[in-house]
Formats: sequence, structure tokens, C-alpha cells
Amino acid sequence: MGLFTKDIHSLEDLYQHGLQDIYYAENQIVKSLPKMIETAPHGELKRGLQQHLRETQDQVRRLEQVFKLHAQDARGDKCPAIDGIIQEGDDLMGNVDDQDTLGAGIIAAAQAVEHYEITRYGALIAWAKELGHRHDVPLLTRTLNEEKATDKKLTALAERRINPRSEKGTARGGHARRRASRSSNRAAASRRKTGSKAGGKKKASARRA
Amino acid sequence: MGLFTKDIHSLEDLYQHGLQDIYYAENQIVKSLPKMIETAPHGELKRGLQQHLRETQDQVRRLEQVFKLHAQDARGDKCPAIDGIIQEGDDLMGNVDDQDTLGAGIIAAAQAVEHYEITRYGALIAWAKELGHRHDVPLLTRTLNEEKATDKKLTALAERRINPRSEKGTARGGHARRRASRSSNRAAASRRKTGSKAGGKKKASARRA
Repeated sequence: MGLFTKDIHSLEDLYQHGLQDIYYAENQIVKSLPKMIETAPHGELKRGLQQHLRETQDQVRRLEQVFKLHAQDARGDKCPAIDGIIQEGDDLMGNVDDQDTLGAGIIAAAQAVEHYEITRYGALIAWAKELGHRHDVPLLTRTLNEEKATDKKLTALAERRINPRSEKGTARGGHARRRASRSSNRAAASRRKTGSKAGGKKKASARRA
Repeated sequence: MGLFTKDIHSLEDLYQHGLQDIYYAENQIVKSLPKMIETAPHGELKRGLQQHLRETQDQVRRLEQVFKLHAQDARGDKCPAIDGIIQEGDDLMGNVDDQDTLGAGIIAAAQAVEHYEITRYGALIAWAKELGHRHDVPLLTRTLNEEKATDKKLTALAERRINPRSEKGTARGGHARRRASRSSNRAAASRRKTGSKAGGKKKASARRA
């Protein structure tokens, strides 16, 4: 985050730099999502990321509205934190040779991005209120709510076992029934209870993908 | 996060690299907190960060227990995301010349660290459960709960207006009564209601520091 790379004399300065920082971050996220979508091994994850790309493009436009309210040109300020978080995702996509593990890693990388945005928008909204920029607040709040919703969706994907246990040379492709037999004792026991291995495909898929 | 800088063939590999990543991150946080504590302009923020330093040292030791459970030496793996987040804090401390704005920025920087840790521990716990590493789960969960509690405390500090409206050349030192007269209409109105300007020092301090 380049928030603090210039002299900051007031909360107004901090707020303006914060806007430039998140504008840079959102634009970097827009650039990074297509590769993540292309690489995502699960249909639901791919669709979720596609939706988030459209939302992120709207979020960029919403920030441009905020800059306009302040009679300023929209401009970004380099942000090492988001660069580092995105770098993780890029490294992941080049270094994981198991599809299920790749899915687990992409969810984790996407959630790191969401949490970064949630904390930054949270601060910006608090500062906008403090500074009396009341027209900025609903625009920033709408984005914050979208980020929180995306984070929840990613958590739901992870909880439904899109994060499978993938052992070297085994699971590829994310089929619930194949994975069930290799999963941890607890997960396997849970699956046996609901009969997912014998005829419970729909239930198992719902939990895992 | 250096999670993905090596070939990862399974969720077990991803988990082990995740542990190394967060171990690196926690150690970097331990190194960065003393400067943040020294610079923090508000007593309550300073004390909160001191408590968090002690907790973070415990969290490092807890991760060492996890490594021990896996018969491995504790070692970190370089993590660009946490490096970027910490860099923000360092830049802040060198570039903000107003004490109240510095407090607002330090809270925001500390919350970015917390959110990063929350998302990483969340993923690690999910993976530990999936992999059947049941002895790791309570250790990681205890840390996750501490991180969430710290984030809540920081939010409470921000909401109690430790994030003041600081205009260039004005507020320094964080005294609620001095700041009250300069704050936004809404905040000022709220303060007038509770009578903080005339004899309400204790109440106002409680809200703002």
C-alpha cells in the first residue's frame, strides 16, 4: 500500500491517499482475475470469480465517482501489500500440479484479497464519516458489502469441501466420490453416515463442490 | 506469502508451506510491533499493541508446537504480502507529521495485519481438519480467536474516535476536549449531547482514546 509514501499532514490527506491506494489495488485485481478464472479447476469457483470480476469492474467505476465528487482525476498509488497478495496467486498457479490443491489454494488467495479490501474499505468509510464526506459513504459501503459477500461465498465453497484432501499422484478433477475414499477419518466417517459413497452422489457433491 | 514458491503436489504440501508462511509472517510482526508501539500517539492504542506483541510471541511458540507435532524444525518461508503490509506501517511512521492522523493510520495498518492473519489461519484450520491433523486444530484456532479479538479491539478504538478529524496544523496530542471543537458536525453534535465539552472529559476520553 502506497498510502503513506508521501507526507501526510491530516486525516483528509490520509483518506485521499487511501482512495488512491484502493484504486490501484482494484485495478490490479481486475488485471489478475482473468488468469485466476482460467486456471480455476472447479466450475463453481470459476463462475464465482467471473462474477467477482464484473463486481470489481463496477467497484473501479464507483471509486471514479468518489474521485469525481472531490473534483479529482482518478489515479492509483502503488500498493506493495496487494502486489504481494496477487503475487501469491500467480506463484500458486505456476507451482501447483494437482487440480484439487490448486482449487484450495485459489480460494485461499482470493480470500486474502477480499480481507485486504474489507479492512481498507472499512477504514475509508470510517474516515469519510469523520471528515463529513457523506456522499462517499454509500458508494464505499456498497463495495464493502460486496467484498464481504464474496468472502462469505468463498468460505462456503471451502466449507463445502472444494478444498479437498489431495495426496500426491491421486485426486485430480474434483469428483466427490473418488475423493471420499481418500479423505481424513473424520470426513470419511461423516460421509459414511450420510451414505454418500453408495448412491449419495448428489449430497456429496453439494458438500464438496 | 511464499506459500506457492515451490512445487506443491498435494494439500499436505500446501498446508506445510502455509505453516512456514505464517511462521515467517508472525516473526516479522514481532519485529515490527515495537516501533509501532513506540510511535503510537494514544495510550490505549500503545497498550493494545503491547498486549498484541505478547500474544504474537505466544502465537510464534504455538506454531513451533505445531511444527513439533509434525516432527519438523520450525522454519519460515518469505511472504511478500506481509512484507508489503508491514512496509505500509513503516512508511506511515516516517511520513505522517500529525499525531492524531498517525493514530488513525496505525490502527488501519494493524487491522490490515490482523485481517491477513485471520484469512491465513482460517485456511490452515480448514486444511488441518481436512487432512486429519486434529492436534493442530486447537492450537491454530486459539490463535485465530486472538487475532479476531485484536481486530475487534482495533475496530472499537476506531469507533471511539481515536480516528479523529485532524486538519493540517491543528490537533496534536489526542486530547478529546481540544479535538471536539474541530470535529465534523455529526461528531460534534453527538459530543454536545453527552456534554463532553463541559465537564464530560471522562466520557469523551472513553469514546476517543
